[in-house]
Amino acid sequence: MSAGPPWLLVLDLAGTFAFGLNGALTAVRAVRLDIVGVIALGMITALGGGIIRDILLDDLPPATFQDWRYLAVAAGGAFIAFLLGHRLHRLAGSITVLDAIGLSVFAVAGASKALDFGIGAAQAVILGTITGVGGGTLRDVLIRQIPSVLSTGLYAVPALVAAAITVAASSIGVYSWPAATVAASACFLIRLLGVHFSLSAPEPPGATRSDPDSPEQE
Amino acid sequence: MSAGPPWLLVLDLAGTFAFGLNGALTAVRAVRLDIVGVIALGMITALGGGIIRDILLDDLPPATFQDWRYLAVAAGGAFIAFLLGHRLHRLAGSITVLDAIGLSVFAVAGASKALDFGIGAAQAVILGTITGVGGGTLRDVLIRQIPSVLSTGLYAVPALVAAAITVAASSIGVYSWPAATVAASACFLIRLLGVHFSLSAPEPPGATRSDPDSPEQE
Amino acid sequence: MSAGPPWLLVLDLAGTFAFGLNGALTAVRAVRLDIVGVIALGMITALGGGIIRDILLDDLPPATFQDWRYLAVAAGGAFIAFLLGHRLHRLAGSITVLDAIGLSVFAVAGASKALDFGIGAAQAVILGTITGVGGGTLRDVLIRQIPSVLSTGLYAVPALVAAAITVAASSIGVYSWPAATVAASACFLIRLLGVHFSLSAPEPPGATRSDPDSPEQE
Repeated sequence: MSAGPPWLLVLDLAGTFAFGLNGALTAVRAVRLDIVGVIALGMITALGGGIIRDILLDDLPPATFQDWRYLAVAAGGAFIAFLLGHRLHRLAGSITVLDAIGLSVFAVAGASKALDFGIGAAQAVILGTITGVGGGTLRDVLIRQIPSVLSTGLYAVPALVAAAITVAASSIGVYSWPAATVAASACFLIRLLGVHFSLSAPEPPGATRSDPDSPEQE
Repeated sequence: MSAGPPWLLVLDLAGTFAFGLNGALTAVRAVRLDIVGVIALGMITALGGGIIRDILLDDLPPATFQDWRYLAVAAGGAFIAFLLGHRLHRLAGSITVLDAIGLSVFAVAGASKALDFGIGAAQAVILGTITGVGGGTLRDVLIRQIPSVLSTGLYAVPALVAAAITVAASSIGVYSWPAATVAASACFLIRLLGVHFSLSAPEPPGATRSDPDSPEQE
Repeated sequence: MSAGPPWLLVLDLAGTFAFGLNGALTAVRAVRLDIVGVIALGMITALGGGIIRDILLDDLPPATFQDWRYLAVAAGGAFIAFLLGHRLHRLAGSITVLDAIGLSVFAVAGASKALDFGIGAAQAVILGTITGVGGGTLRDVLIRQIPSVLSTGLYAVPALVAAAITVAASSIGVYSWPAATVAASACFLIRLLGVHFSLSAPEPPGATRSDPDSPEQE
């Protein structure tokens, strides 16, 4: 069982819900799956990051399989997205914002849980980042896209920032929900500013959909 | 070590053999790999679902690495498929039937083992479904296809049905090999009826090979 | 914590460094990612095989998250590759040699650690092979290529040879760093000879980049 404070569970469930909506909307938009595929992609996106985190922390079975609320929230989010997805006018925008929310809260929740399990500071930052990007990476692999964590510089970086703020706040003894809120908000803002201004490290045109079969440099 | 009854081991090995044949035939048919690739894809398909289940249940090392029969059955199935695959006239049909067998028995075996490990009912149903679809999903990701669990409504649903029957039979105290047979047979029949009549929730034409780079709705 | 001898840690870190360079150079060459993507792909390639091994051996959290040197070596290798990658004239050759180094030492390290954890001989050979090919397989899946372990016969085979030599040396009581060096060197030579002379089991032309959407036999 999670040994963390109650607000950590709230963060976890909020991220699960956001990623459940996000994964299901991605399925509606990018791959046009049927209802089972939409729910499945929503649940994998919602639960993937936390399951990877719990495997790496040896907190098995993962929280997902110890607490029914994770499954209910993930399935609920995916089902709502299936019902409403076709009516959304700005589907791409909603997908981006929901992904940023999940990324932010999971990076904080992952780093927090790693600290609770006695992992070192640098490793907790990496584990928080993995938790944040994990669900979206599984989502992208399953629908055959290059994962955001590879194709977009400002996807892993904001998650790293959130996890680092979390670990820093803990090390100076001021870690609680206000610090978690600051960390998640910083990640969310950096991510959305990056998307809005197309900020990233230099990359070739179209690299977010880059094709490994394209002409290569030698 | 597995704490389950002997027929659970039989189910596990039967599913391993069917998925070993299936994965290797898929390699022969869809990607035309050489012998090492064929054996490797067969073994990954055969062992993937059970390894994922054992990781999530914290039964590590997985049964695969504690009992040599899993490796032998998986490698044997893959090798037989390599030898015979080129002679089969109805290769696609064989692949579908073997996949349905593996899906059915792994969904039952996964749900059973989850119950043995004290997982809750809803979670045991999900874990059984993951066990059933896990090996095939790894197979499809490795050969760059959209996984069946996403593209075909009647792939996850029969696995869910088999896992749910298993859990229901356990909860009313009649769980043993007859109930397991009923559960696996139900999954197998639903899956093959779905394939035969092309039953599924509404989806766009060609969605089983849908391309994320195709024109998208906004 | 790892219970192995000190030269096992050296092997592990050498493989981590080689795969960190390899993954990052692959990102520079094949997908033209930005710096964050390059570092991320390098670290995933470097750490993936060992993490999979430690999950399967129930040595959690993985060595990666218990010992800061793994993260430092992986990130350092990836960063060096990012800085120097654009200047290398023979990038494809460097990528192949680094991949062969990582494959060789990880196959030996994986088999050794499996023996230390009391796994049976056949299973230790398979686990060593998985450790060797694991990081490269994650790398290939993330950049949407058919993994080398499936497409090239002489990728899994040399890893199997190295793991088998390791297990055989252990069973006759002569296992120490000289045996490990022989095992890793055998793998490295077989792999490079296979690449140089294009040795492999028969496969259709272009199968290393084969496309599941290409015409199929029935």
